[in-house]
Amino acid sequence: MCGTNSTNGAHAVNGANGASNGNNGNAHFRSNPYQPVGDFLSNVGSFKIIESTLREGEQFANAYFDTETKIKIAKALDEFGVDYIELTSPAASEQSRKDCEAICKLGLKAKILTHVRCDMRDAQLAVETGVDGLDVVIGTSSFLREHSHGKDMAYIEKTAIEVIEYIKSKGLEVRFSSEDSFRSDLVDLLSLYRAVDKVGVNRVGIADTVGCASPRQVYDLVRTLRGVVSCDIETHFHNDTGCSIANAYCALEAGATHIDTSVLGIGERNGITPLGGLLARMVVTSPEYVKSKYKLHMIKEIEDMVAEAVEVNTPFNNPITGFCAFTHKAGIHAKAILNNPSTYEILNPADFGLTRYVHFASRLTGWNAVKTRVGQLGLAMTDDQVKEVTAKIKALADVRPIAIDDADSIIRSFHLHLSEQGKAVHNGEAAGQEMAPAVVA
Amino acid sequence: MCGTNSTNGAHAVNGANGASNGNNGNAHFRSNPYQPVGDFLSNVGSFKIIESTLREGEQFANAYFDTETKIKIAKALDEFGVDYIELTSPAASEQSRKDCEAICKLGLKAKILTHVRCDMRDAQLAVETGVDGLDVVIGTSSFLREHSHGKDMAYIEKTAIEVIEYIKSKGLEVRFSSEDSFRSDLVDLLSLYRAVDKVGVNRVGIADTVGCASPRQVYDLVRTLRGVVSCDIETHFHNDTGCSIANAYCALEAGATHIDTSVLGIGERNGITPLGGLLARMVVTSPEYVKSKYKLHMIKEIEDMVAEAVEVNTPFNNPITGFCAFTHKAGIHAKAILNNPSTYEILNPADFGLTRYVHFASRLTGWNAVKTRVGQLGLAMTDDQVKEVTAKIKALADVRPIAIDDADSIIRSFHLHLSEQGKAVHNGEAAGQEMAPAVVA
Repeated sequence: MCGTNSTNGAHAVNGANGASNGNNGNAHFRSNPYQPVGDFLSNVGSFKIIESTLREGEQFANAYFDTETKIKIAKALDEFGVDYIELTSPAASEQSRKDCEAICKLGLKAKILTHVRCDMRDAQLAVETGVDGLDVVIGTSSFLREHSHGKDMAYIEKTAIEVIEYIKSKGLEVRFSSEDSFRSDLVDLLSLYRAVDKVGVNRVGIADTVGCASPRQVYDLVRTLRGVVSCDIETHFHNDTGCSIANAYCALEAGATHIDTSVLGIGERNGITPLGGLLARMVVTSPEYVKSKYKLHMIKEIEDMVAEAVEVNTPFNNPITGFCAFTHKAGIHAKAILNNPSTYEILNPADFGLTRYVHFASRLTGWNAVKTRVGQLGLAMTDDQVKEVTAKIKALADVRPIAIDDADSIIRSFHLHLSEQGKAVHNGEAAGQEMAPAVVA
Repeated sequence: MCGTNSTNGAHAVNGANGASNGNNGNAHFRSNPYQPVGDFLSNVGSFKIIESTLREGEQFANAYFDTETKIKIAKALDEFGVDYIELTSPAASEQSRKDCEAICKLGLKAKILTHVRCDMRDAQLAVETGVDGLDVVIGTSSFLREHSHGKDMAYIEKTAIEVIEYIKSKGLEVRFSSEDSFRSDLVDLLSLYRAVDKVGVNRVGIADTVGCASPRQVYDLVRTLRGVVSCDIETHFHNDTGCSIANAYCALEAGATHIDTSVLGIGERNGITPLGGLLARMVVTSPEYVKSKYKLHMIKEIEDMVAEAVEVNTPFNNPITGFCAFTHKAGIHAKAILNNPSTYEILNPADFGLTRYVHFASRLTGWNAVKTRVGQLGLAMTDDQVKEVTAKIKALADVRPIAIDDADSIIRSFHLHLSEQGKAVHNGEAAGQEMAPAVVA
């Protein structure tokens, strides 16, 4: 809605549309009544992903990737369709350097980057591995200048230009990023970015290294930067305060071109913008772009692969792949979902190769959900009979948690009772369950 | 930074401050150089929490709360300091009604609300339970009007006013909310809210029922609404696209007064704004308000209680309580954190009764982290010796994942070797580890 109101009554919601949300039979919802208002700054429909599971993700507490695992993850991400794969600096360890070389030799479609300190020796080592580009980083906040590397802005700018010119002389792509950008001096930051833009850096990077940024701060900073540099803008958001997906989205709205992600968001502390979560956000806004570019049905498989490698469980509340992301429970929700999934779903589970569930074995259930289950069991009842058995299910579920088996038993026993009394309706009368979603406990 | 630059070089970052981030000895960081620019609309420093674990949370797929569990959760939330506790409608089931009565009789400091459909019978049933107020809801989007209740806007407004006037006549607080507000017609929505504001509703509610809203949309809608009604504004955000915390934050920036939360965000599908995650965001922006009002050290205990009740694990990447939320791994991070925790931490673990860890048993480690560990083991080495043993740790960690025991063994064996050769430095020379954070694998 964006607080605006267009003349035809349709709104500038970057919201659901029936076409992408699919499976309903109503032609009215096949067209999108929520076209966004045009915004020349926004790249929400044309962004690139720099996938950093093999760099930022390796900084996750539990991560240890051997060469074989790295290659498996890199290949899967490449098949999924990410634009770039970022690897740990070859300066980190000898095996890191060898793995970098091995992944460069795979001949993937994605460009291979490595992430190095703004230091000529690190850059030289990286260039020799065969990568397509270098992501160069240095801390610019007073915190990091005082407590980490101890260098002043003049020194940073001079070194940055030397390193960038060296990398470009080798024919490679180069990004220059500050660390902790949101606690850096704005004028220092813009001066530095303007200087590196002038010497032809491919991208500048904004990094919320500590996870302190809020969405409108991100929008303002990226929008300001967009007016200062002509190169691409990459952004990197930590999730300490839970805003990493939203911040990435607002960065794109303000003209950022590249977003850093990792699978399940793994990284330092509680991590960064997750690949799956970002795509949940973006597919709602730009369904055509996202669906044509990325193999969304691979998200679960890639998340499972990484979760296993770092020995964590997919969070129960993960966007898309959390076990209940497409489970509907309250009676009022279930009723509407059964009529039209777009009522309570902005994402279509089928886009991700997943399935919708309507939970009916609880005290919050309603008779519409139970009616669907009755049909799935091949039984036939009138609406009044369904309401009667719904009351029985709710009564038991009010006393203790019940499983689908319990609810099914109640339905079957009630139906048997009806049959014995000759009250059961003919099976043919309870038809048309084909299109109904799966109803489970 | 907010894209602004103040004259004294301090920025309008709603960011870290040394005072709240505590444990460093540098007076420079004790004052807050990141005072936000004043904003008369913003309620980021004066919001109220409507805690809905016992309503929205009961709609989570795995949730079944018996009376005892509900009371335990309600008491814990009350002690924590939430302003309101919202309960499932007494119309949902007979036990729901009894539980509502039981919780009202506890005499908690928090006000007790129940969440009901915009229906006179539901309202009457709710009023009789002894609650302090009713949260009334009806779907206003074309999706819900067509596929759920089938009522038009004129009917909705008429019913809303009847129900609101009834509840007020009973001396109770009343909120009126639309469902799926971001896919509702803006003019319809504003007309309806203006009408209910005129009859004296206490709060109007904006609900992103399907989780489609983005932060700047939220800001725009709430800001527009703020100019139309004089009552309070409550907001409710689902997390399907990962923006529920950011959206709540932007709503407060735009003048919303109340935020709905649940513990761990449990609710329909993948849930809503999580209590802990919201407070991670808010404590960064408004440390004094948040710390004086809420018992932050209870977050872990309350999350554990609810996680156990609904049989899920706390997500590995949860803000604050994820197992690695305060774990630092990369050498460059560890070095700076050991100098000053504010460098890579926007949240202070001590505020939540938690502890920081610096991970040193990996190939990404650096000698500063190892040096701290050497001190913790009561050993003494020169910096050159620490660098030498760091190389040994990195070499082993390059071949396989190593545990803290492995790294400790390498350090002890190296130190023993030094002693035998008479190269070990005197213990007294490696002092000053008192203030160092815990270093573990």
